Amino acid sequence: MSPLLNDTFLRALRRQPVEYTPIWMMRQAGRYLPEYRATRSRAGSFMGLCTSPDYATEVTLQPLERFPLDAAILFSDILTVPDAMGLGLYFAEGEGPKFERPLRDERAIKALAVPLLDKLQYVFDAVASIRKALQGRVPLIGFSGSPFTLACYMIEGGGSDDFRYVKAMLYDRPDLLHHILAVNAQTVTDYLNAQIDAGAQAIQIFDTWGGALSHAAYREFSLAYMQQIIAGLKREADGRPVPVIVFTKGGGQWLEEIAAIGADCVGLDWTTDLGVARARIGQQVALQGNFDPNALFAQPQAIEHEVGRILASYGSGSGHVFNLGHGISQFVQPEHAAALVEAVHHLSRPYHV
Amino acid sequence: MSPLLNDTFLRALRRQPVEYTPIWMMRQAGRYLPEYRATRSRAGSFMGLCTSPDYATEVTLQPLERFPLDAAILFSDILTVPDAMGLGLYFAEGEGPKFERPLRDERAIKALAVPLLDKLQYVFDAVASIRKALQGRVPLIGFSGSPFTLACYMIEGGGSDDFRYVKAMLYDRPDLLHHILAVNAQTVTDYLNAQIDAGAQAIQIFDTWGGALSHAAYREFSLAYMQQIIAGLKREADGRPVPVIVFTKGGGQWLEEIAAIGADCVGLDWTTDLGVARARIGQQVALQGNFDPNALFAQPQAIEHEVGRILASYGSGSGHVFNLGHGISQFVQPEHAAALVEAVHHLSRPYHV
Repeated sequence: MSPLLNDTFLRALRRQPVEYTPIWMMRQAGRYLPEYRATRSRAGSFMGLCTSPDYATEVTLQPLERFPLDAAILFSDILTVPDAMGLGLYFAEGEGPKFERPLRDERAIKALAVPLLDKLQYVFDAVASIRKALQGRVPLIGFSGSPFTLACYMIEGGGSDDFRYVKAMLYDRPDLLHHILAVNAQTVTDYLNAQIDAGAQAIQIFDTWGGALSHAAYREFSLAYMQQIIAGLKREADGRPVPVIVFTKGGGQWLEEIAAIGADCVGLDWTTDLGVARARIGQQVALQGNFDPNALFAQPQAIEHEVGRILASYGSGSGHVFNLGHGISQFVQPEHAAALVEAVHHLSRPYHV
Repeated sequence: MSPLLNDTFLRALRRQPVEYTPIWMMRQAGRYLPEYRATRSRAGSFMGLCTSPDYATEVTLQPLERFPLDAAILFSDILTVPDAMGLGLYFAEGEGPKFERPLRDERAIKALAVPLLDKLQYVFDAVASIRKALQGRVPLIGFSGSPFTLACYMIEGGGSDDFRYVKAMLYDRPDLLHHILAVNAQTVTDYLNAQIDAGAQAIQIFDTWGGALSHAAYREFSLAYMQQIIAGLKREADGRPVPVIVFTKGGGQWLEEIAAIGADCVGLDWTTDLGVARARIGQQVALQGNFDPNALFAQPQAIEHEVGRILASYGSGSGHVFNLGHGISQFVQPEHAAALVEAVHHLSRPYHV
C-alpha cells in the first residue's frame, strides 16, 4: 500500500495537532455531482454502482477530483447488509429502497441469522480497489448502518415517517426486536472487520434513526448494540489504529452516553452547538460536524460566514473533523460544496497555530 | 360562562396540587376517530371544518365524548393565519396543504402585512361556540403556529423535508426572513389575544419546525419571536390567568433558553427524558409531554407500561401535563388512545398524595 500523504483527518480523530480542520461530507459521492449521475446512468442502477468494485471506485473518487477533501468514504449503501440476509432489496421508482420480505412475523424473525460474508465480498473488493486507486492521497472510511437503523428498514420494509411496525414491536415484543438487533450487531461487527481487513482506515457507524426513539428506548435498542460492535472491532490494522466514529442523528441530548461507548469520535447534527458539545465530551472524544446540509442552498458568501461561526464555536485546537450534519442534498450546486471545503481549509488555520 | 368543573389541567400548568396528572393529546380531534371522518365527510373538506363554528365545535368535542380528557383544544389549523394574509391556501389531493403564492421574492415579502383580524372571525366564533358547548367540563386551549413554523409553510409553499427556500433565505437574506417573522409575530399576538377574548383559557404555541434549525439560528429566528408574542399576550381573562405553553418539537437541547421566554409550560417531545427536563427547568415552568405518539401502535398493555415509565420519570408532585410528543397518527386505533388516558389517570394518583 502507498504511504498516506494526507493524514490530517486521522490526526484530528486522535486529537493530535493538525495544520487546519479536515473536512469530508456525508454522501460526498452522490447525485449532486453530474459526473456521478453519468456513471450511475452507465451502471444502470444504484445497486449496479454498489456491486461493481470498478464503478464504486470511480464514484468514490469523483468528489476528490473536484474538492480537496481530507477523506474518502466507501461508496456503498447501508442496506447491503439486510440484502445479504435475504430480505430482497429492490428500488421502487421514485420511492427509494424497499424489501420484498419485511420482518414482521415471529417465525421469520427467529429464522434471521448472520449471513455468509461471501455475499458481501463485492463491498470488500470495492474497499481494496478504492484503496489502490487512492494511492495514499487521503484515508478511506468504511461504514455500516447501526443495528437499530438497519432494523427500521428491515421491519418497515422501506423508509418510514412513523416507524409504526418497529415501535409496535419495540413496545409489544421487545424480545423479537432484541433478536433482530443481536443478529444485526454480530453481522455489522463482522462486516466492518472485513472492511478493515480490506483496507478501511477509519469506520463510521450511521445511526440515522436512533434519534427517533425515546431516551430510554435509545439506550436499550440502539446505543447498547453500537457499544457491542465497537467492542468487537479490530482497532488496529497494519500496525496503525483504526478510529471509529459514531453518529446518531438527533442524538444531541445524549452526548455523554454516546461518548462513553468506546468510539474515538462522535458525529453531531447541526442542532447541537459545537462549543457546548466540546465542553460536555470534548475531553473524551473528537467531534465531527456539524454544518446544516441545507444551508448549502445559500450562496457561497453566506456558506463561508456559517463555516466561520462553526469553527469559532469549536475554538482552538485539534479534535474537530468538519462535516455536514447529514448527507448532502442532490439539489445542491457543486460550487456551493466547493465553497464549503475552501472556507473550512482557509478559515480554520488560525485555530491551529 | 359556566363555572369550570375540571380545572386539573390549569392547576398543573400553575404547578398547584392536583389529584392526578391531567392529559390531553395533540390532534386529539382527528382522523383516527371514525366520527371525525364522518363529520369531515359532511363538511366536504378540511377547511370546511375549520371555517364553520358548528363543525369545529362538533369535532372539538368528539374526543371528549370518548375519553375523559382534561382539556379541549380548538379545532383549527395553523395555516389559517397565512391564509388570512392572502397566500392562497389550498389542499392538493394526497399532498397536504399548499400555498398558491409562496413568499420567495423581495417585493412580495416586503408587501406582507398584518391582516385584518376580521378574516379570522370564524376562528373566534368557533372558540366562543366551543366554550358554550363545553359547559365548563374542561378548559379550552387556543393555539397558533410559531412565527418561524408559519414562515416555513409560507416560504416553501407547503410541507418540506429540507426547507431549502427557508434556509437559503435565512443565510442569504436574513433581513427578509426577519421581516416575515416580525409580521407573523404581530399577527399571532393579535390572533391569540382575540382567541383569549373569545374564551380560550390557555394558549399553546406550536413550533413544529424550530427544531430543524441550528442552535444559533433557532434563538434568532424562532425563539426570539415566540418571546415577543408571549410578552404581548393577555395573561388574564375574566380575572383568571391564561397560561401559555410553548412547544418546540426537537427542542430538548435548548430547554433552559425555552424556559426563559416567559411561558408557563414547556412542551417536550419523547426524545427528552422527563426527569432530566424537570431537573433542568422544573423549578421555573410546568412540563408537558412526552409519550411517543407512535408507541400508540403497541397494544394497551404495553402502552400502560410506557405510561408508568414516563410518570415515574417525572416523579411526585404537580407541574406535569401528560401529552403525546407530537400529534396522534390517523392510523392509531381509538381503543389505544383510551388505554393511554385511562393509564395516565389511574397510574398517576400515587404521585399526587
